[in-house]
Amino acid sequence: MYSFSNDYSEGAHPIILERLSSTNMDQTDVYGDDSYSAHAAELIRAACGREDAEVHFFLGGTQANFTIICAALRSYQGVYSSSLGHINTHEAGAIEHTGHKVLALPATAGKLTAAQIEESHLLYLNDPKREHWVQPKMVYVSHPTEVGTLYSRRELTELADVCRKYGLYLYLDGARLGYALASPGSDLTLKDIAQLCDAFYIGGTKCGALIGEAAVLLTPELKTDFHTIMKQNGAVLAKSRLLGLQFEALFTDNLYEKICRHGIDMAMCLKEGFAAKGLAVVAESFTNQQFPILPENMYRSLLPMYAMGSWEVYSNGTRAVRFCTSWATSEEQVGKLIRDIKSF
Amino acid sequence: MYSFSNDYSEGAHPIILERLSSTNMDQTDVYGDDSYSAHAAELIRAACGREDAEVHFFLGGTQANFTIICAALRSYQGVYSSSLGHINTHEAGAIEHTGHKVLALPATAGKLTAAQIEESHLLYLNDPKREHWVQPKMVYVSHPTEVGTLYSRRELTELADVCRKYGLYLYLDGARLGYALASPGSDLTLKDIAQLCDAFYIGGTKCGALIGEAAVLLTPELKTDFHTIMKQNGAVLAKSRLLGLQFEALFTDNLYEKICRHGIDMAMCLKEGFAAKGLAVVAESFTNQQFPILPENMYRSLLPMYAMGSWEVYSNGTRAVRFCTSWATSEEQVGKLIRDIKSF
Amino acid sequence: MYSFSNDYSEGAHPIILERLSSTNMDQTDVYGDDSYSAHAAELIRAACGREDAEVHFFLGGTQANFTIICAALRSYQGVYSSSLGHINTHEAGAIEHTGHKVLALPATAGKLTAAQIEESHLLYLNDPKREHWVQPKMVYVSHPTEVGTLYSRRELTELADVCRKYGLYLYLDGARLGYALASPGSDLTLKDIAQLCDAFYIGGTKCGALIGEAAVLLTPELKTDFHTIMKQNGAVLAKSRLLGLQFEALFTDNLYEKICRHGIDMAMCLKEGFAAKGLAVVAESFTNQQFPILPENMYRSLLPMYAMGSWEVYSNGTRAVRFCTSWATSEEQVGKLIRDIKSF
Amino acid sequence: MYSFSNDYSEGAHPIILERLSSTNMDQTDVYGDDSYSAHAAELIRAACGREDAEVHFFLGGTQANFTIICAALRSYQGVYSSSLGHINTHEAGAIEHTGHKVLALPATAGKLTAAQIEESHLLYLNDPKREHWVQPKMVYVSHPTEVGTLYSRRELTELADVCRKYGLYLYLDGARLGYALASPGSDLTLKDIAQLCDAFYIGGTKCGALIGEAAVLLTPELKTDFHTIMKQNGAVLAKSRLLGLQFEALFTDNLYEKICRHGIDMAMCLKEGFAAKGLAVVAESFTNQQFPILPENMYRSLLPMYAMGSWEVYSNGTRAVRFCTSWATSEEQVGKLIRDIKSF
Repeated sequence: MYSFSNDYSEGAHPIILERLSSTNMDQTDVYGDDSYSAHAAELIRAACGREDAEVHFFLGGTQANFTIICAALRSYQGVYSSSLGHINTHEAGAIEHTGHKVLALPATAGKLTAAQIEESHLLYLNDPKREHWVQPKMVYVSHPTEVGTLYSRRELTELADVCRKYGLYLYLDGARLGYALASPGSDLTLKDIAQLCDAFYIGGTKCGALIGEAAVLLTPELKTDFHTIMKQNGAVLAKSRLLGLQFEALFTDNLYEKICRHGIDMAMCLKEGFAAKGLAVVAESFTNQQFPILPENMYRSLLPMYAMGSWEVYSNGTRAVRFCTSWATSEEQVGKLIRDIKSF
Repeated sequence: MYSFSNDYSEGAHPIILERLSSTNMDQTDVYGDDSYSAHAAELIRAACGREDAEVHFFLGGTQANFTIICAALRSYQGVYSSSLGHINTHEAGAIEHTGHKVLALPATAGKLTAAQIEESHLLYLNDPKREHWVQPKMVYVSHPTEVGTLYSRRELTELADVCRKYGLYLYLDGARLGYALASPGSDLTLKDIAQLCDAFYIGGTKCGALIGEAAVLLTPELKTDFHTIMKQNGAVLAKSRLLGLQFEALFTDNLYEKICRHGIDMAMCLKEGFAAKGLAVVAESFTNQQFPILPENMYRSLLPMYAMGSWEVYSNGTRAVRFCTSWATSEEQVGKLIRDIKSF
Repeated sequence: MYSFSNDYSEGAHPIILERLSSTNMDQTDVYGDDSYSAHAAELIRAACGREDAEVHFFLGGTQANFTIICAALRSYQGVYSSSLGHINTHEAGAIEHTGHKVLALPATAGKLTAAQIEESHLLYLNDPKREHWVQPKMVYVSHPTEVGTLYSRRELTELADVCRKYGLYLYLDGARLGYALASPGSDLTLKDIAQLCDAFYIGGTKCGALIGEAAVLLTPELKTDFHTIMKQNGAVLAKSRLLGLQFEALFTDNLYEKICRHGIDMAMCLKEGFAAKGLAVVAESFTNQQFPILPENMYRSLLPMYAMGSWEVYSNGTRAVRFCTSWATSEEQVGKLIRDIKSF
Repeated sequence: MYSFSNDYSEGAHPIILERLSSTNMDQTDVYGDDSYSAHAAELIRAACGREDAEVHFFLGGTQANFTIICAALRSYQGVYSSSLGHINTHEAGAIEHTGHKVLALPATAGKLTAAQIEESHLLYLNDPKREHWVQPKMVYVSHPTEVGTLYSRRELTELADVCRKYGLYLYLDGARLGYALASPGSDLTLKDIAQLCDAFYIGGTKCGALIGEAAVLLTPELKTDFHTIMKQNGAVLAKSRLLGLQFEALFTDNLYEKICRHGIDMAMCLKEGFAAKGLAVVAESFTNQQFPILPENMYRSLLPMYAMGSWEVYSNGTRAVRFCTSWATSEEQVGKLIRDIKSF
C-alpha cells in the first residue's frame, strides 16, 4: 500500500535529519535568538533579494496565518479571501477567533483576480454606510491555490497594484510554495513574490521539513513587536534551533528548490500517464496535486494498492481523485501506478 | 563556555533522534491520527492510571495553556493563578488574548494554597454584586513552580478538594513535570496528579524532547470537540508523528523518568557544592533549578566560563543566581563548576 | 421636507415619554433589579405564553445580537445567516469580534430555508475533515428580513424542526418585529415565535421606544449567567428603569401592537398608491418597508420634498427606492406623497 | 425610606426630560449624525478648550471604557490600573474580553502615582525577556476614584508627564466627573483634564442624564475609524438624538456644573453632620461619596429609614458605610438624616 494522499506523510528530508543529529548536543540560545535561526533568516533574505525583510519561523500554516493577519489588522478590519481559501475553510475559524472577518469572494480556478478585488472594494468605499461594515484591509492568496493552480507574474502584479492603490496589504500563503517555484507552469520567482507582497510564508512542512514555515515580513508596519505577537499566539519556540536548522539546510545548496522539483517531476509523470490513458482532469495542474477523473471501477481497482484523495463523485460513474506527490515520492511507486493505470 | 542558563539549550535525547531517523520514511496518517500518537497516548494513559484520559500533543507550553484554558472557560470566566504563574507573566497576555482574566493571587514559596483559594472564592461568592465580577472557574498551578518549589501530595489534594467543593477546575502546568517526579523532595506521583487534576500537561521540551508537551484531559466536559479547539488555536500538527514518536519513546522503558532523574542528580550535586562552600540560597530547592546567592566577585569570576541566570542583585554585594540542569547536563561540567566555586 | 428614510427618525411614543416623566423622581433599584423591569418582563412572558422565559433588556440590536450569540456559542462554533443578514453586513464585524464566524448562505427573498440549512449542515457533518471546520451551532434569521419579507408559520416551523434535528439553536432578530406581527402578510404570532425559537428579541427602537430591545431567552442553557455576559458586553444599564418603563408601557393595553399597526397601515396606503400609479416593486412587501421602482424623473421631483432611501439604480432610467413608515408616520404626509405621485 | 445607596436611583434632571419631550416628534438624522449630537459635541469642545477634540457619546461607562481601550491598544498591549479600578473589578472582565490585560497596581488612597507607574514601567523596560510580557501602553485612572478621592492638578500632571516620557496613553474614567469638578477638594478643571489626557469621558448617567457618557478623544491616533469601532462594540445608537439632546442640555447654561454642585453641597452637609457627631471616616472625601464609620447600633437604627451601602464591618462593633448624594438628593432628607444621627 502506497500513499499519494498528501505531501506530509513522511518525516523530513534526510539532510535535515542529519543536521539535527550532528548539532544535537550543541548548546544554543533560545526563543529565536539561536545562531541557526539567524543564519537561516539571512539565507532567506538573500534568496528573496530583500535585505530589509524580517524572517520569523512558525510551527504550522494555520498559526502563521492567524498570527500575521492578527498582527496586520485592527479589531474592525477584515481580510479578502477566495471562498476556497484555507483561512475560510479548514482552519476552524482561527481568523475569526482573533476577531477578524474573512471576506469571502468567489474563486476563479481557485484564484482571486485584481478586478474582483477592485470591484468589491469599490462597493465598500462607495457605500454611504460603510462605517457600519467591516473595513477590508488585506488580501489573502494561496500560491499554489487550494486546487493546485498558480498565479502568474502578471496576475500577482495586478493584485499588488490594486492593493497599493487602496491601501490593502497583500499576503501570500505559501504552504506549498516550493512546488509553485519548481513548477513548469509558473513564471513567478521567490524574488518576485518578495517584491509584490507585504508578507508571505515559505512552507516547510509540505516541502521537506519535519515541521515549520518561514514567514517573511516586508512592510515595516507589520514588523512592530512581532515577536511579542508570536509569543501571545503560542508561536515562539523555546528550542528555536529546531526551526532554524531546518530552514538553514533547506536554503543551503538550493535544497528547497531541488527536492520540490522532484515532487513536481513525479507529478508531471503522473500527469502524462493520466493523459496517455485518455483520462480527463478536473483542471490542468502544473503543481504537485493532480486531479484526474477515473472510471469508478478503475478507482476501485487501485484502492487496495494506493491511498489517494476522493475529490468528487459524479453521476456518470466517474470520480475525481487527488494524487499528491512530494519531495519524498518514490519514483518506483509512480512508475508502478502509471503501469497499473495503463494496463487497466 | 558552558551554559546552565536553562533546560532547553540542547536538542533531544539521542533515543528520540534515533526513533525519528529510523521511522523517517514510513508513511503515516496525519493531524493526530498516526499510530505513533495513538500508541504514545496509550502509554501515557497507562502511566497515569487513567484509561479514561484523553491525551493531546501540543507544540509548546504557552499553546497548551491557552488552548486548555480557552476550552474550559466560558467568555466571562477567569482563572486563579499565583502572581508568579507563567500565564500571568511570561506568556505575553495569551490568556487575555483568548478573552479571559487571570485572577492573580500572591504566591507563598511560589505556590497557591487551598485556604487562599477558598478565601478568595468566598469573597466572590459573598459579594452581592458578584454578577459584575469575572466568575472564577479554574485554578492554575505549576509543578514545579516558577521558582522551583513543589506541591506536596497533601497540598495538591487540599487544592483539589477546594476546587471540587466550589465547582472549579484544577489545571496543572507540568512544563518541568519530569523533574518534579524525579525529585527527592516530592511525594506526588503521576498517578496522584491524574487523580487530583481535571487537566494537566506533561512537559516534553524541557525534559528531553525536541519539541512538544502532552496534555492529559480527565474531566469529560473538557474533552468536547477538543481537536477543533486545538485546530483553531494552531495546535494541530500535520506531521503529528513528530510528537507521537517522541512521547512514545519517552514513555517506553521509563525513559522520561530516567533522564529527568539525571537532571535532578546534577542539581543535587550543585546544591551540595553550594552548601559545602557555605553559600546561602534564595529558597531550598529539590528540583533542577538552584538559586544560590553568590558574592559579586565570585559571580564575575564564573561569568567567562559559565552561562547562568542573574536572578536578583542585592545591595550587600551579593547576587542570587539561577543554575538550571537538565537531562543533558554534563557531569564533567558540574564537577568543574563545583571545583571552581570551592577553590574561589 | 418629510422623511420616509427610516423608522427611527423621531423620539418615542408620547405614552412612553409620559411614563418616564411621571416616574422620574421615584427612587428605584438599579442594574436590572428595578420593579419596572420586573413588571415589563412579566408582561412579555405573558404575551409570549412562556412563563419559563427569561427577559433581558438591551440598548440596541447589534448589542443584543452579539451578546446572545456570544452566550450561545463555544469559541469554535459559528452561526448560519443569510448573506443579507444584519450580522453579516451592517454590524462592523461585531460577531467576529466576539470570535465567531458568520456562515453566510444565499438568501431567497431575504430568507433562509429549512432545506438549505439541512443541505449545508449535511455537507459539514459528512466531511471527514469536519474537525478542521467551524462547527455550525446556530441559525440566525431576521423577521421581517432586511428586505421586508416575512417568514410564514410553516417556514419558521420547518426551520425550527431542522434546528432541533441537528442540535442547532434558532435565534430570531426582531428589530422590526412589531411590524411583522401587525402585518396582513404574516400568520406568525408572538406565541408561535416563542414556541419555535431558542431565543429572539422584540425590537423597541424601531417600534415606538426611545431606546431598547427586549431579549427573550427560552432554552435553559442560554440563560446561564446571562447577566454577567451582558455586563461584560456593556449591556447592563445602571438606570435600568429606562428600559423597563418603556417595555412596560409597550406591553400594556396592546400599545406595541396598536402603534405598529399604524406603521403598517401607512405602508399599505403607500403600496396601494404605488400600484395605482402602475409602479413595479422590487418585491411585494407587507411590512413597513416598501420598495417601488420609480422613473428617474419622478424620483428627482420627489427629492426636494421627501427623504427616502435610494436602493438601486437601473440602466433603463429607473431606480428602486425604499420608503419606510413607522408608528410615527404622518397620515397627512402619506396622503400628500400619494397625491404627488399620482399627479406626476 | 430614602435611598443614599447611589447616584443613579432617579431618572433625569427635569430640564433634560423637558428637552426630550419638546423635540420628540422632530425628525432627525441618525447614528450620531443628528444636529443635537453635533451641537452637544461643539459645546463640549468649547468647555474643554480643545477645538481639535473628537466627541462621541456612549450608553454607559463599561462600554466607553472597553471601546476606548480596545481602540487604543494593539492585541498584545495592556493597561495599568489601580487594583481598585472599575475596569479591574466591576466590569465582568470586559477589558479582557476585548483581549487586553489589566495590569493592576496597588492603590494609594484609591489613586495611582506617577512614581509608581515609572517604577513599574522600568521593570518592564529593563527586563531582557520583556518581549514575553504584555506590553504596557495605557494608564487608566478614575476621577473621582472608586473610593471618592481626587487627583490634584499636580498629581495628574505628573502622571501625564510620565505617560508622555514612556509613550503611554493617559485615559481618565469620569463616570462621576461632575462631582469632581464641583468639589471644593479639587483644583483640576475640565480644561486641565483635556490638556493632560489622551482621552477621557464625562459621565452623564450619574450626573443628571437619563443615560449616556460623552467620550472626548484628543490624541489623533485614537480617533481613526472610531465610529466603526463603536459600531462593532454595540455603542452606536440609532436614535443618537437621545444622547445628543441630553449633553446639549447639560452643557448649556452650566447645567452640568450646577446640578453636580448640588450633589456636592449635600455631601458636604453630611460630612459636617458626621463630624459634628464625632464619627470617624474611612478617608476624608470631598466628593459625593462619604464613608463614615458608624457604631453598629446607630447603623441598625438608620436601616429602616435610609438605604445606604455597607462598606466594611469591623470587629470593634463599628461599620463603614457609604452615603452617596447626587443632583437629585433631597435637602429635606439630608437634614432629617443629620438630625437622626445627632439625636442618636
